[in-house]
Amino acid sequence: MLRLLSMKHNDKEQLGVESEDGERILVLADAFRQLQPGTECPVDMSTAIQRGESFLNSAAEVMEQALAKGEDEAFWVKIDEVERRAPITKPPKNIMCVGKNYAAHALELDHDADLPEHPLIFTKPHTSIVGHEQPVSIHPEVTDQVDYEGEVAVVIGREGTKIKREEAWNHVFGVTLLNDVTARDLQARHKQFFLGKGLDGFSPLGPVIVTDVDERTLAKQHLTVTVNGETRQSAPLTDMIFDIPDLIHIISRGMTLEPGDIIATGTPAGVGKGMEPPQYLRAGDEVSVHLPLVGTLRNKMTE
Amino acid sequence: MLRLLSMKHNDKEQLGVESEDGERILVLADAFRQLQPGTECPVDMSTAIQRGESFLNSAAEVMEQALAKGEDEAFWVKIDEVERRAPITKPPKNIMCVGKNYAAHALELDHDADLPEHPLIFTKPHTSIVGHEQPVSIHPEVTDQVDYEGEVAVVIGREGTKIKREEAWNHVFGVTLLNDVTARDLQARHKQFFLGKGLDGFSPLGPVIVTDVDERTLAKQHLTVTVNGETRQSAPLTDMIFDIPDLIHIISRGMTLEPGDIIATGTPAGVGKGMEPPQYLRAGDEVSVHLPLVGTLRNKMTE
Repeated sequence: MLRLLSMKHNDKEQLGVESEDGERILVLADAFRQLQPGTECPVDMSTAIQRGESFLNSAAEVMEQALAKGEDEAFWVKIDEVERRAPITKPPKNIMCVGKNYAAHALELDHDADLPEHPLIFTKPHTSIVGHEQPVSIHPEVTDQVDYEGEVAVVIGREGTKIKREEAWNHVFGVTLLNDVTARDLQARHKQFFLGKGLDGFSPLGPVIVTDVDERTLAKQHLTVTVNGETRQSAPLTDMIFDIPDLIHIISRGMTLEPGDIIATGTPAGVGKGMEPPQYLRAGDEVSVHLPLVGTLRNKMTE
Repeated sequence: MLRLLSMKHNDKEQLGVESEDGERILVLADAFRQLQPGTECPVDMSTAIQRGESFLNSAAEVMEQALAKGEDEAFWVKIDEVERRAPITKPPKNIMCVGKNYAAHALELDHDADLPEHPLIFTKPHTSIVGHEQPVSIHPEVTDQVDYEGEVAVVIGREGTKIKREEAWNHVFGVTLLNDVTARDLQARHKQFFLGKGLDGFSPLGPVIVTDVDERTLAKQHLTVTVNGETRQSAPLTDMIFDIPDLIHIISRGMTLEPGDIIATGTPAGVGKGMEPPQYLRAGDEVSVHLPLVGTLRNKMTE
């Protein structure tokens, strides 16, 4: 299990691996150069994902060697010495998202809602992606109903079409978090969700991609979202109506999934629109999406 | 005005320019090498669009020189000697499409439909893109309601956010055609349109991108779609509810548009679902989307 991230370090975009305590980061290119001089470090996360197993094996080996060498080595840096990026900044397709995938959330948005018998899938463009701790504009000139939606997202590792439910996890590279920021007024006005969900900055992603996750591990995880420290969303992942194998199976029935594609799995109850009265995000608000396995994705809203 | 295309020729993916009579193609890399040895030919359409004006100027110059040299020169090939590709195979974002942008089409799908006051925008992934004369699978294992939707599409040439209506045409690289193939059953079942519109092969695009188009030229154009030679859709482009400057303005209000982005402008009345009884596409059917300015985009359906 690796905690992979993208970062700017030494004026260069590069890959890192977070230590388990989250305090240090292994600068992957430096570690490869020193510890596995024969192996080339991928230039970015997309390349790493393309290489798949062979990258994961060598990265795991390098990580083990680096831990053994101790934290004084130059390939280790403190977490606050790097500027984080979203782990993936340009997936091959727009991020794919599921609407109303937690029953209580579907009902908070519309008390008479029928639960979906088939998943609602919409997309968010790469131009909306930002990383952990990058600011998110609330776009006051186009919306005054900006809302958060904390979600678990899976990153596809292996290309596939017509993927069977029982094969789905073999196509997963890892798991990360998405804040599916949404302009509720635009979402309602334009009917199809793309515009209200796709504004620049509306897809905070990260902080890391955790690899080698299996269904059992994830089933024990609990997703929490706080706004300025106050808990707003909190649910076990087992509450999803369509689970991860369902989603991969259904989306890939006629559409090829590719390495680096991102599927976000929907948000639980507790969004701002569901409160009485609704509470939308304002400049200065800080939203944190937390899953014990992945960590915390935190972003501050700005004008 | 250039008629740019992507093609496979001499076992290589490359760029071409179609002659006005549509019978010959200038192999752009060969022509650059011979006629403008100082200028590098872009490797693909995305690179060409990125270069913008400077590419368009040198390509126009090369085209003029090549026409002057005569058609026996080796940089000219007959149209049937090349294998066409979609002019753009991987736009930066999914293709952006507008639902219900012609009043008569909105009403044929739902007699009680209100005309949209705000455009419905959904997306189609690059994995659905195919070129002129490439086969389109009707995916019989997932749908039995495959329908055509002929559309004009604009290709963005210059990055922009908050683009004003009156500035919109300055951000357009050119115009092409899209067949927004749609599985009506999946579209209805999944509510959001992405899955029913996004199957592999469901976005025939081309045959060429025509550059230097202005609003006045386009306003005189008439879009026609035939199935097996029978006219099904036929409308002037002035019937659009939201015109091209509207769409560019509205989409870019909070979302950055990038060079190579594709915006399809909606389909007129006459789709298979609107007929009584509905007539969906079957293997062997041939759909042609025609605009005098761009030419004909023709694709045969297969199992």
